[in-house]
Formats: sequence, structure tokens, C-alpha cells
Amino acid sequence: MSLVVIGTVAFDAIETPFGKTDKIVGGAATYASLAASYFFDKVKIVAVVGDDFPQSEIDDFGKHHVNTEGLQVKKGEKSFFWSGKYHNDMNSRDTLITELNVLADFDPIIPESYQDCEFLMLGNLTPQVQQTVIKRLHKRPKLIVMDTMNFWMDIALNDLLDTMKMIDVLTINDAEARQLSGEYSLVKAAQKILTMGPKYLIIKKGEHGALLFGDGKIFSAPALPLEGVFDPTGAGDTFAGGFIGYMAKVGTVNFNNMKNAIIYGSALASFCVEKFGTEKIKNLSEKEVAGRVQEFVNLSRFEIL
Amino acid sequence: MSLVVIGTVAFDAIETPFGKTDKIVGGAATYASLAASYFFDKVKIVAVVGDDFPQSEIDDFGKHHVNTEGLQVKKGEKSFFWSGKYHNDMNSRDTLITELNVLADFDPIIPESYQDCEFLMLGNLTPQVQQTVIKRLHKRPKLIVMDTMNFWMDIALNDLLDTMKMIDVLTINDAEARQLSGEYSLVKAAQKILTMGPKYLIIKKGEHGALLFGDGKIFSAPALPLEGVFDPTGAGDTFAGGFIGYMAKVGTVNFNNMKNAIIYGSALASFCVEKFGTEKIKNLSEKEVAGRVQEFVNLSRFEIL
Repeated sequence: MSLVVIGTVAFDAIETPFGKTDKIVGGAATYASLAASYFFDKVKIVAVVGDDFPQSEIDDFGKHHVNTEGLQVKKGEKSFFWSGKYHNDMNSRDTLITELNVLADFDPIIPESYQDCEFLMLGNLTPQVQQTVIKRLHKRPKLIVMDTMNFWMDIALNDLLDTMKMIDVLTINDAEARQLSGEYSLVKAAQKILTMGPKYLIIKKGEHGALLFGDGKIFSAPALPLEGVFDPTGAGDTFAGGFIGYMAKVGTVNFNNMKNAIIYGSALASFCVEKFGTEKIKNLSEKEVAGRVQEFVNLSRFEIL
Repeated sequence: MSLVVIGTVAFDAIETPFGKTDKIVGGAATYASLAASYFFDKVKIVAVVGDDFPQSEIDDFGKHHVNTEGLQVKKGEKSFFWSGKYHNDMNSRDTLITELNVLADFDPIIPESYQDCEFLMLGNLTPQVQQTVIKRLHKRPKLIVMDTMNFWMDIALNDLLDTMKMIDVLTINDAEARQLSGEYSLVKAAQKILTMGPKYLIIKKGEHGALLFGDGKIFSAPALPLEGVFDPTGAGDTFAGGFIGYMAKVGTVNFNNMKNAIIYGSALASFCVEKFGTEKIKNLSEKEVAGRVQEFVNLSRFEIL
């Protein structure tokens, strides 16, 4: 039984009010698989990089017990590269450079050893490629979580709607939920989106936490109030990876387990933003993760008499 | 032992995407005292109206056991009038008309029977008038809660800072916390504001809930996700009234009781926005309130194993 994560493994160059980086390793599959590895030790990635991607970075996945058999390394080609600059409020950013490179014709290969996949994380990518992965798995996983973004709603809406019919959980932010549904109220937005395929919807609200909709219920998870957000890049992917990693650990798919999975995902995302790139989430101890989760408990618990 | 509420009792004319009203009764003290009356039966208001204010509306306070001995009725003068129009997102609004009328030279009178005040709610008004009320109470109340807004930060900052030194709890929204502190991070904003006088700070985030800071702790309260917000007018006042009403009921001022008070205040505010003006919060049953509070529990409870 394994957890397969598909998404980008790539280079980012990031500028925030606190500093800027050269090319550092990023990508949805990088963040999500590292996050998932804190809860589950059979995480396997499907991605593509060029031969400019350092072997030492591939080895780092191994240190987290992340299987890279499905990571294609394209000879003579370059890895996907994104460069962006965050505004002062850290809630909005400008994309400076996008070089698709190997991603332009990414054809995901599912190694035979990945066919034991029971939990599938579709990180942000073209909906067409996300769908291909589902189709190439011989057995439908127990839980398929899909992350996507407004970009695909703008340029590939039909593909997105097709792929949404094949999944269990969709994770998007509040603006995207409004765009996808045409509804301003998130309750109405969720009602509509839950008729489009997914049984569960997670609406990510950044510093305001997250909402889980499904089974006729709603769960509101807080975000940890932070003194400063250093670099938001990868927070959503880290959240999704932590979420599905925890679900794979507990094994049973239900609303209650998803509530906890959201708290664990939020805890990891709160670490992610404290440093540039993957620096923080590459080096967490079990104790740090447990301590952060306890902060979420303390933050939101109340006892009505 | 009583709970004194000072603020406006006034007329509003409201336009939202769902409709518009003629002049209806509103005002911070109206909403706050009605909300408080669900938890505590010795609520007393200090306010001023003109003789255009209907006796039947004054009688309605009595039906909620709200004492109106401190409500001045100015002969030959007109009540404060505000008219506003909400935008489609319901989070922003334009003020169309503000007629101060009796409010222009409001000199609050504290009846002798109000001197048993142990809980004082300073609804949104000029900080100078709020301060006068504190000074005219012979004994310092056990808990002073102050609501204010960006308008006073713009035109009466020094008065506001002076009054803040005399209170226990400040309630403002997130934009106001940022304005008052000059800090974007709400954690840093709270740290600064808690050096300005109040021991506790409540940051109201509308559809994203509320944060309580104090005693070195943070509590994050969810907002109830609603299908639609019909009229947000008075929601903040209702929240504050429910908060201090619950505190008066339990009697002991500490962080844990404030957490519950925020949930009760949020529950009442969630009713407030379901209809125009005070219509909904004038007519709630105990069972409705308890049911709504239970919805908050269900919404936010999780059990980490």
C-alpha cells in the first residue's frame, strides 16, 4: 500500500520583502511528498526534471523515504523554472519568469511498483496530466486528492471539470472556489462544487485557515497566527501533502479523520512559510510537529458549559 | 450589579444587494444591549435620541429587560441618522448620509441607579464621550470593553489612545488593528496594542471569525459559514453585546470565560446578519441561541488522538 504524489519538481527563484533566493528546489510534488513523509513512509513521486537537477537533491528525497523511481530525468533538457516576487502583504505575488522546459511535454510514467497506490495526491499540474495518472493506475485508489488553481480554470476549464469527476477531494483557495462556482458565499460555492464530482472540498483561506465541506457537514480549521510569514511558496502543497500523508497513516477515509488531517497539514504549512523554500520542512523533528499540532489545539479549543 | 451599555440609539436606512429599508431603528447601544439581554437581565443603556424616536421602540427595550433610565429624549431635536449602501461582497459599504443631530453635543447622564455597574460596554462613539462615562462612574467597573473604529483613529487618535489606557478589552477589526499598530502581522499588531492600555484585544475578522489576544495566549474563534449575509449592519455591536452579556452572566473575568463569550457573541452576530436591522435579534428563543452555539462547537471541534 502506498501514497503516490504527482506534481512538479522544479527550480524556484523567490523574492519576498525579507530577501531573495537564487534558484532553489521547489515544486508541488517536492513540498507535498516531503510533508507526507512525516506521517507515512511509503510515499512515491511521479514527476519530471532535466539533467540540470542535482543528484544530491534527488538523494534528499531518499532520506525522507520518498521513492523516486517515477521521477524521470530528461537528458539534455532543463527543469521547470518559476520565479516570483511577493508583495508586502505576502498574500499576492507577481510571476516574473515561467520556463516550462521538461514540463511542456510531460508524460507521466507509473512504475509497476507504484501500482499498489491507495492514496493519490494530484499536485497542481495541467488537469490532463492529472487525469492521465488516474487512468494509468490499474486499480482506483481509495482516496484521490486534487489540487489545482485559477490558471487551469482560465485556460483548461473543460479538462479540469472532466478530471474533477474522477476525484474524491478538491483543494482550492477561496477566490478559486468563487471563480469555479460563480457564487460569492463559500457555503453556496461548496454546494455547487460538490455536485461537480468531488465528495469533499477543502477551501484554503491562507492566514484565515481552511474549511472542509462534505457529508453534509462543515469543519472550520484555524490558521496559526504568525509573527511573520517569510516565504509563502509551497504552503498549499505542503498543506495538501500533510493532509494526504496523515490520511494514508490512519487509512480510513471519513470526515473526522479529514478534520485531523487538515490540522496536521496546516501545522506543516505553518512551518513551511517560516523559511525560504523547503529549508524548514526538510528538517523537522517529530517533537516539533507534535508541538505545533498542540498549538492548534490550544488555539481553537473551547468548552461550552 | 449591572451591565451598562453606552452607544448610539439611532435610525438607519440600509441598502444591500437584497433590498433596502426606510428609516429603521439601529445604533450600537441598541444592538449591543439587545444582544446582552439574552444572557443577563440587568442591562442598562446610556444614550440620547430626539423626540422623533417612537415610544414603542423604547418600550421594546423594556420587553428585553433593558433599563432605559439613562436614555435621554431631547425635545424638539432629531435622532442620529445614518444611511449606507453595501457593495456586492457585503464586506465594504458607502456611507450615503450621516446626520449627527442629538449626537453632536451628547453629554452622557449616568443615573444614580446605574452606579452599581460592574460591566461596562463602551459602544462605538467619540472616545471623549466614552471616557466621560468611565469618569462618571463612582467605582471602576470590573470589566470595561471598548469598541471603536478607524474613523476615530483618523480624527481623534489622541483621545482614543487616552481612553484606551482606561479599559480592559478593545474590539476592532483586522484593518483597524493594522492601522492602529502600523503592523501587518496581527500577532505583532496585538503585541503593540496590548502595550497601549487594554489587557485583552479582540480582532474581528467578519466571515473569518475573531482572534482574542491576552495573558500571553491566543484564541481563534471560527465564524459560521453562511449561505448569505442579508445585512451586516450591527453585527459588530451585537458581537460585543453578546460578549459582555455572557461575561456579566458568568461574572469572573479570565481568558477561558472570554473564549466562550466570543463564541456566544459570534452566535448572536450570525443571527443579526440574517435579517435587516434588529429584526432577528429582537426575537430569538433560548433554544435558537443554544442551537446556534452548538453549531459553532460542531464546526470547530476536532480530537487529536
